Amino acid sequence: MSGNPADHELDAGIAARLKFNDRGLIPAIVQADETGEVLMMAWMDTHALAHTLATRQGTYYSRSRDEYWIKGLTSGHTQEVTGVRLDCDGDTLLVTVKQTGAACHTGNRTCFFADDLLS
Amino acid sequence: MSGNPADHELDAGIAARLKFNDRGLIPAIVQADETGEVLMMAWMDTHALAHTLATRQGTYYSRSRDEYWIKGLTSGHTQEVTGVRLDCDGDTLLVTVKQTGAACHTGNRTCFFADDLLS
Repeated sequence: MSGNPADHELDAGIAARLKFNDRGLIPAIVQADETGEVLMMAWMDTHALAHTLATRQGTYYSRSRDEYWIKGLTSGHTQEVTGVRLDCDGDTLLVTVKQTGAACHTGNRTCFFADDLLS
Repeated sequence: MSGNPADHELDAGIAARLKFNDRGLIPAIVQADETGEVLMMAWMDTHALAHTLATRQGTYYSRSRDEYWIKGLTSGHTQEVTGVRLDCDGDTLLVTVKQTGAACHTGNRTCFFADDLLS
């Protein structure tokens, strides 16, 4: 199996159920399988999703860098994907993972470590 | 306090920390406070977020209907907001709620009730 996400094609039956935005992307909410923590949100295109399903490595598309990004490939903070669920209207994914180390590039466990705007 | 989200203005100090997309929207992941379930994802603009913070009622902007939407106003399936956290790069919100009844318009507890694409 190729390690290059761009080489992965999404199953047509799955692709038909998804609504990508006008940039060809769908948001993926990433949740820790064991604790339920919401770790991060990232974006996938068809190839990133196909790579995620085929390899069970969390794989995303970086809008700012315009490239694929296999989580943990450089940091070691990998995500073993345990589930990929589609929402009711087919435009959001919920990805459950076993997260090694920090999900956030800041070194925090989750990207949502900031102060609560409510308090 | 006005019940019309459009009348609510976001605190300038909070607004300065947020990155809205080119349509003026930011994604809001909604999680059940007590169980950790991810219930839904919706979008907010500055007014929807300001209304959410001021009233603690989950308030969103519907892209398809081009209008504000206070969760549960017609269905009774209200969301009492208990936290609103910003992610590390300021472009996603994590909203924790006490959800009354179903979060999904289909009557399911969560919008992510579909089959797992992995299995």
